[in-house]
Amino acid sequence: MLALGNYAQARKRRVNNEVLIRRQIEKFVTAFRTRDLNLMMSLYAPGLVAFDIVPPLQDAGTDNYRKVWAEIFKHFRGPIDIASHDLDIMADYNVAFSYQLIHVQATMTGGQKADFWERMTFGFRKLNGKWLITHEHVSVPVNLKTGKAVLDLKP
Amino acid sequence: MLALGNYAQARKRRVNNEVLIRRQIEKFVTAFRTRDLNLMMSLYAPGLVAFDIVPPLQDAGTDNYRKVWAEIFKHFRGPIDIASHDLDIMADYNVAFSYQLIHVQATMTGGQKADFWERMTFGFRKLNGKWLITHEHVSVPVNLKTGKAVLDLKP
Repeated sequence: MLALGNYAQARKRRVNNEVLIRRQIEKFVTAFRTRDLNLMMSLYAPGLVAFDIVPPLQDAGTDNYRKVWAEIFKHFRGPIDIASHDLDIMADYNVAFSYQLIHVQATMTGGQKADFWERMTFGFRKLNGKWLITHEHVSVPVNLKTGKAVLDLKP
Repeated sequence: MLALGNYAQARKRRVNNEVLIRRQIEKFVTAFRTRDLNLMMSLYAPGLVAFDIVPPLQDAGTDNYRKVWAEIFKHFRGPIDIASHDLDIMADYNVAFSYQLIHVQATMTGGQKADFWERMTFGFRKLNGKWLITHEHVSVPVNLKTGKAVLDLKP
């Protein structure tokens, strides 16, 4: 009975953590959609290491990544239509990761329409009782023969 | 003292899990270098969801991903020089993630040289006492203005 009790307790904790992480990801989508830089940055841990869709190979630290997000938001005009698909979350006590496909539809500052899917992976740690993103990996596939990004894929 | 004992025990378990995961990543590097398809596939969980460097957006399941790796290995002639840099691992009891930069240097089947850096994120779960990859995300950055993959970046 003790073992079962422990198992049930562990399961409850894991499910609860998944709920908390799902809320963080909902905040991420809201921050992206509304271009809310402060809400966005509240989701990251200071020691963040990010592999972004664009160069460089990696970005380290939130001071740096705040500039990256400010730059991304500048490229768009009006709200950014972001939809999350196929989100999966694996949560333990203090470490978790998630992955999802993101459909981006928006108007660029120059007037051209953007409409593409990207892949997004988060690594989370529970720090002072709060789930924060310590690792982010965003990308689109590339055709290595042509050297071109493939932006017309659909799931 | 009990709290400290629990803390020390949890820390020991986490460090031990990081060691086990590091070994799995070393096996991954060996499998890639020596083009050992069976060793490579022994590292993945059946429910794998992979975001690969090339299309499609995602690959699901190991039957499918075995074909992907077989295809990758066919593109190269001789051994593939793979070096892992800046590896970081976050491990809890049963969930972990890792990220690293991978330097690939090899000769393609057509004779041309490949020399580029890619970003690699793994999501792990401990299943039946063994750490297996349930999520993989590999990419290179792209220049969204030119639509080109950026393959000449160095960390």
